[in-house]
Parts: sequence; structure tokens; C-alpha cells
Amino acid sequence: MKACIDCIPCFFEQAIRAGRMATKDDELIKKITDQLGLMLSEISLDNSPPEIGRLIYKKVSEISGNPDPYHQLKFDCTKQALELYPTLERMVKKSNDPLLTAIRLAIAGNVIDFGANASFDMPATIDEVMNKDFAIFDYELFKDNLKTSSEVLYIGDNAGETVYDKLLIEQLNKPVIYAVRDKPVINDATIDDAKQAGIDKIAKIVSSGTDAPGAILNTCNEEFMKLLNSNMFVIAKGQGNYEGLSNERYKIFFLLKVKCKIIADHIGVKNGDIVLKGANV
Amino acid sequence: MKACIDCIPCFFEQAIRAGRMATKDDELIKKITDQLGLMLSEISLDNSPPEIGRLIYKKVSEISGNPDPYHQLKFDCTKQALELYPTLERMVKKSNDPLLTAIRLAIAGNVIDFGANASFDMPATIDEVMNKDFAIFDYELFKDNLKTSSEVLYIGDNAGETVYDKLLIEQLNKPVIYAVRDKPVINDATIDDAKQAGIDKIAKIVSSGTDAPGAILNTCNEEFMKLLNSNMFVIAKGQGNYEGLSNERYKIFFLLKVKCKIIADHIGVKNGDIVLKGANV
Repeated sequence: MKACIDCIPCFFEQAIRAGRMATKDDELIKKITDQLGLMLSEISLDNSPPEIGRLIYKKVSEISGNPDPYHQLKFDCTKQALELYPTLERMVKKSNDPLLTAIRLAIAGNVIDFGANASFDMPATIDEVMNKDFAIFDYELFKDNLKTSSEVLYIGDNAGETVYDKLLIEQLNKPVIYAVRDKPVINDATIDDAKQAGIDKIAKIVSSGTDAPGAILNTCNEEFMKLLNSNMFVIAKGQGNYEGLSNERYKIFFLLKVKCKIIADHIGVKNGDIVLKGANV
Repeated sequence: MKACIDCIPCFFEQAIRAGRMATKDDELIKKITDQLGLMLSEISLDNSPPEIGRLIYKKVSEISGNPDPYHQLKFDCTKQALELYPTLERMVKKSNDPLLTAIRLAIAGNVIDFGANASFDMPATIDEVMNKDFAIFDYELFKDNLKTSSEVLYIGDNAGETVYDKLLIEQLNKPVIYAVRDKPVINDATIDDAKQAGIDKIAKIVSSGTDAPGAILNTCNEEFMKLLNSNMFVIAKGQGNYEGLSNERYKIFFLLKVKCKIIADHIGVKNGDIVLKGANV
């Protein structure tokens, strides 16, 4: 999915938000916006938003001297999610359709996204997503495809959301490979974040190789590309992975909470909607 | 009032919105954002937002070749407001406190602001502002100062809002000088827009000399500065005039609907609040 002119103010919002996480020095934050301004004319909107985001967050780290501005926040989000985990697990187990409940909770967890959000209300989001109709609901296709697959590639998104992903992984009843970002970018999950969530106990964690906040294939490593090309069942979480993969030819189930009008328009749903969308299936 | 780092994404939003009003050519709109990006490092946030806005809207006109992108919209807003005028006039006349009702309606009209808003709902705003508590309500001071003044300087804001100002001017029972922007900028009222609203029938219209979307004194003409220095009763409408005048030493009554969190914080109220604030009184 390509970026568009309306992404530009949001790029600045993201840079300022990340700048404030990275440093308390207002002059450095102004320097970040100035540098982003100078970069703008070299940025083609034919790129996807996470491709551009990658450059922006690199610039934030470079100027602030902080390679991982969201480090503490990621740790705290995962910790909080783990505290909630027993309650969420009971919700899944008591449910009439544990797989669907786990899908809903995995989507609720997708609100932990500091690229798109300045803040969020987790209990309210869980309540909302548990009771909301899906805008796109390819659940039968999801189950049919899952049944015939021997393995699952699960492309994770944010730290903390990883704990919600765990609930879904446990319901898939298949061997799962959980792919994460290679380097810290925004609050996206890396190997360390996935381990903190305990994903390593129930799946094999791999790095996709990317340092972008989404699966941008020309930045991914050989191992990840092999997995993607092996025709296994693929789940991609969140907006960044949708933006990176929506125009690719792979059979993928996208699970996300839409948090941006531009992505909503691209999918053909409304901002705030929840989506379980099978692509190329 | 100084700008701040959080104004920067909004500057881009405004540039894009004005760009779309000025041209249908997407490449020109991208050029506008690119050029604004290049300008950023030369822009000091010690300037007020309308001082910076002035540069941005000049750039939009320069690149698009359109000196007055909001021309038609201003005409339409004034026309629509004039159609509503008899109804609004009845509301004032039937009211227990016609002056206060006219103040409320003049503030409701301040929602017609395409710098701060992409769109608005006029009937809903009138209903809201007629029934809402003021966050700051220096009404007694307003009346006391008005009583002892022989003349009023009324600094207008947007086209269309001018018609709502007419209701208030009619309740002041004093000779009124109505100051407008010298050149078109966003949908701010110029002499022609004020005349379309019929202000010339009940007040003397003057140009403040500025081409900024707010009364930025170092861009104002001698005539306006003389009026401001003559110690008459001054009403300043809207955010742009507040941003330009809030740090000056003049006795001014600010009437506005707050449409931005940064201005809300500066005044000490909430976004969406309505304000009748006497400064230096």
C-alpha cells in the first residue's frame, strides 16, 4: 500500500512523539522536525508508510542518540499484558468459540500501537472488540485454510500485543513460527520483547530481518522470505504489516484494528473497525 | 502567543487543505509540502502561529498560482449566513438578554474557520454555543467597559462569521470600526467579504493592513495601530487574533470558540470551550 499526501502530517506527529520518548531536549526535537522537513522532497509517496516510517525513526534515533526510545514503554506494556493474561485466558476457555475469542483478543491487543496512537484504554478496547461486528470477517476461510496447513507463520506487530497473540497461538493447534522486527522501531516487538511475553515457550521466534515498522519485503532476510514462500498458513498482525504486504501476492490473513482513515479507505472499511481479511485465498 | 512543536503537523495539514482548495494537481500539492519542509528549519517557533501561517499560505498561493483559494467558499459561507440572519436576529430580539445572545451567536460564527477546521456543522454549533457555559465569562467587565466607551474597534476574523458579528455590532449601540485583513488569507474576511455581509451598513470597515490570518501587529498599517492605541473598546474575534494579540499590552475583549488544544492550554481552558475574556482590563 502506497503512502499519500495525508500521511505527511502524521509522519511529523510520529516524529515528535518518538522524539519526546527519546529525549527531553526540545531543541533536539525541533531538529528532528527540521531534518524530516529537509528529507520530505526526497521521499516518494510511492513508498509504503512503514518504508518511510523506517527512515523517520532512524532519524529520530540518530539525532537524539537514543537507539530504542520505546524500550521502557515496551517492557511495561508487556508486563501489564502478562498481568492480564490469566483473565484473558479464562475468557478464551469459557467461550463458546475459543478460536474466535482468541482472534478478537489478538485484535484488541493491536491497539498497543504507539505509531498510530498517543495513548489507549486497554479495558475499554477489549470490551469494544469482544462485542463489535467485524467489518470484514473471513473466519470460515481462515478455519478452512488453517485445517489443511501443517505450520503457521505468525507475523507479529507490537510489544505487549505479543501477549494477546499468545492466546491465539495457543488456539491454532499447529506449530507456529513467530516473526518479529530485527531492530527496535517504535514499540514494535523484537526477539527480546517476544521472549518477555513468553512466546518462546509456545512457538519458534524468528527475526524477519527488517528494521521497518512493518514487513517491508526488500528489508527482510532470507530466512523470513523462505518461510513466506513456503506456502504455509500466514497471519499478519496490525497496520504496518498490512501496509507492507497488502499489495504482495502471498496468501495472508490480516488481523487488525484499523486506526487510520487512509488504511480504512484502502481496505474499504471505517476507521476503528476490526478486520479479519484473507488476501489471495 | 508563541507557536510550539505540536503546531508543525497542523501547519502541514493546513497547507494540504489550502493546497487542495487552490489546485487539483496532486504534484503541486506535494510540491507545497516539500517546500514547507524546506522552510521548516528557517521557521522559529518564537513566532506566533499566524505569523508562520502567513508564510505558509503565501507559499500555497505562490506554488498553486491561486492568490485566493478560499474565494468561492468565503462567498458561499457569507451567503448561507445571510440566509440564516433573519432567524438569528429573531433569536436575539426575543432573548431576555439580547447582548449576551448576540455575543453567543458571534462566538458560534467563529466555527467558520478553515484554518482550524476541515468542516463544521453550523446548526449544531449554534445549538451548542447557545446552551453551553462559558469557560471564561468576563461579561460584567465587558458591559462596564462598553458603557464608558465612545467607540468600538471590532477586529473581525472569518468571512461568514462577519454576519454573526453584525448581530453583535447591532447590540453594542456604539459607533463601530470593523477591521479586516488586507489581503485574502485562508477564509479570513477582507473588505469585500465584510461588505457582502452588510457590515458597511452598520459600521465603518477598515483594513488592518495585515495579510496574516490574525492581527500580527508588525504587519498592520498605521491607521489600525492608531485605532488600537486610541484606548477605545476593542473586541477581537477568533483564534488568529488571540494568537496575535494575547501577549500585547492592549485592553481587549477576546471572543472565541477554542478549536485547538494548544490555544486551549494557553488560555487555560479545554478544546471546544467558548470564551469571553477581557485582557488588561
